[in-house]
Amino acid sequence: MKKEQVLLAIKKESEHIENRMKADLAELQPTIDGFLAEVLEYGLFNGGKRIRPFLVVMCSKLCGGNGDLVYSLACAFEYLHAATLFHDDIIDDSDTRRGCPTVCRRFGVSAAILAGDFLHAYAMSTVGRLSGDGGLKVFCEATTGMVDGEFVQLRNSRNYTLSELDYYDAIKGKTGLLISAACEIGAMYGGGNDRQVSALRCYGENLGCAFQIVDDLLDYQGDSKKTGKGVGNDFIEGKMTLPLIIAMKRAGKDDRSHLLSLLSDKKERKDRVVEVCSLIDKYNGFELARLKAGEAVDTACGALSIFHDSSFAREKRLLEELAFFVLTRER
Amino acid sequence: MKKEQVLLAIKKESEHIENRMKADLAELQPTIDGFLAEVLEYGLFNGGKRIRPFLVVMCSKLCGGNGDLVYSLACAFEYLHAATLFHDDIIDDSDTRRGCPTVCRRFGVSAAILAGDFLHAYAMSTVGRLSGDGGLKVFCEATTGMVDGEFVQLRNSRNYTLSELDYYDAIKGKTGLLISAACEIGAMYGGGNDRQVSALRCYGENLGCAFQIVDDLLDYQGDSKKTGKGVGNDFIEGKMTLPLIIAMKRAGKDDRSHLLSLLSDKKERKDRVVEVCSLIDKYNGFELARLKAGEAVDTACGALSIFHDSSFAREKRLLEELAFFVLTRER
Repeated sequence: MKKEQVLLAIKKESEHIENRMKADLAELQPTIDGFLAEVLEYGLFNGGKRIRPFLVVMCSKLCGGNGDLVYSLACAFEYLHAATLFHDDIIDDSDTRRGCPTVCRRFGVSAAILAGDFLHAYAMSTVGRLSGDGGLKVFCEATTGMVDGEFVQLRNSRNYTLSELDYYDAIKGKTGLLISAACEIGAMYGGGNDRQVSALRCYGENLGCAFQIVDDLLDYQGDSKKTGKGVGNDFIEGKMTLPLIIAMKRAGKDDRSHLLSLLSDKKERKDRVVEVCSLIDKYNGFELARLKAGEAVDTACGALSIFHDSSFAREKRLLEELAFFVLTRER
Repeated sequence: MKKEQVLLAIKKESEHIENRMKADLAELQPTIDGFLAEVLEYGLFNGGKRIRPFLVVMCSKLCGGNGDLVYSLACAFEYLHAATLFHDDIIDDSDTRRGCPTVCRRFGVSAAILAGDFLHAYAMSTVGRLSGDGGLKVFCEATTGMVDGEFVQLRNSRNYTLSELDYYDAIKGKTGLLISAACEIGAMYGGGNDRQVSALRCYGENLGCAFQIVDDLLDYQGDSKKTGKGVGNDFIEGKMTLPLIIAMKRAGKDDRSHLLSLLSDKKERKDRVVEVCSLIDKYNGFELARLKAGEAVDTACGALSIFHDSSFAREKRLLEELAFFVLTRER
């Protein structure tokens, strides 16, 4: 399978998912308030990468699942993901997402809370119906775990001496749980045995970890035209992410207290992004963080090694490629 | 069964429910963030009437259900109810609930959003586990229906010529759906046949309707020491509820335009509560609204007439008494 074929296959799957989401919304539309439908359409179709549904479909197929209904199950993960973004953007008071006004800026906080709640219930109902008790349990635990992670983050904000371990805990809740739930539930739905389900959960956990580290790297190093976000946002908000945590740990005494003073001065932070970047760079914070992401991708792909059946070589290859794509993505 | 016995029986059931909720929280506590646990405890134990869980238990027993697990299912309804209150108080920008600061005032908007999301997922997971696919479907549809109703309400705010029919639609979403879902799912869980399930759903729909009309009456006529809310809040916020809708419809031309002018003057509204009350009274708005609530209670109790089995006479009686309690409650 050549690179272009891989990309084409991923693109085709994404389109299929996108179409199913559009069909779901069209089915809902006559039964819900027009304003709610408008908010959902705006919030759901804004150029998302649809990684979670893609994972559900691939993991199901890799375990031998077939049929078209898996796409409906897959979309539920995008709905829950969107619900958390609607609510997160209120909590973080964010102006834009992917270059467009956030749902709360565009339609108000009330609409963003309610539309999130709607998608939440809609997603749970779909997962319960299609993946049964076991799947619903994993899905709900991922959701409560994500919320718990957000509380940890609320408490961690302004803890400028956060350890690497605290960081991994936090990103596990923030990104890892839903991504690994997508893989696990996909595998369960596809009829995978315990060993296969747990291998794909492991793939998902590590992929989620790599995904978030790269996200945090892009915050400092990304091209804002591609990411749709300003550079250095996390630092400006006083959020400790891996590059800065590594630099803080490796810095000499003077640079360390300099970093701390930059962080403490809330008002000045937005003019100090360049300075902080060069300090992170001095202690190889970016490079070392990228290495960690690479290690997580290696572990993720390693977990796939138990899948030998050549009839599913295509799905295995796509999951590997997705992991490398996560590592090299620019948005 | 004498009045005192009825009250004692309701009180005993409520205590059992309250204890189960405390046990749930104690079980969760070691697995979640301490701040989240604090928010949940504050938001869940504030003197709620526990009507929804009570209905689940009674409807299940009336259909022949037994065993203690129904109390766990029942509590899920209180968790979802609390989740909607956490979010509603943000949307309505409310300072107090039952005489205490709302969750969003006490712990901030972020914590209130997240704790609501947590309870949401926790409730769905419990209902899915205990009541199966059919129950989860009803529960999720009640949730999405409630959100849809809130959107209708967002659009209706400032529509001062709302019809009685619009009002019934709105309160069905706001209160009726979850109350009727509690009755329906309780009946399903208890092994009720289709006719029993649909009778109890009908009981719940009408009980919910009566409950909300009385709530809206208490807003104008209640003793704020008992309700924990100020008098005339709905009018001050420009919300059209049944007493005012009736008065508006029955008022002569002059009084009608006077009412409209009182409503339009947002800043002055809080000094005009007494004036508006006497106008509502002039057109029997309060009396006629109370009659409507009484009719709904009659319909609710009528739906119970298919239950003849004398072994469940106690449960039937308690459901009837609850309906009369809803009508005469003062808080």
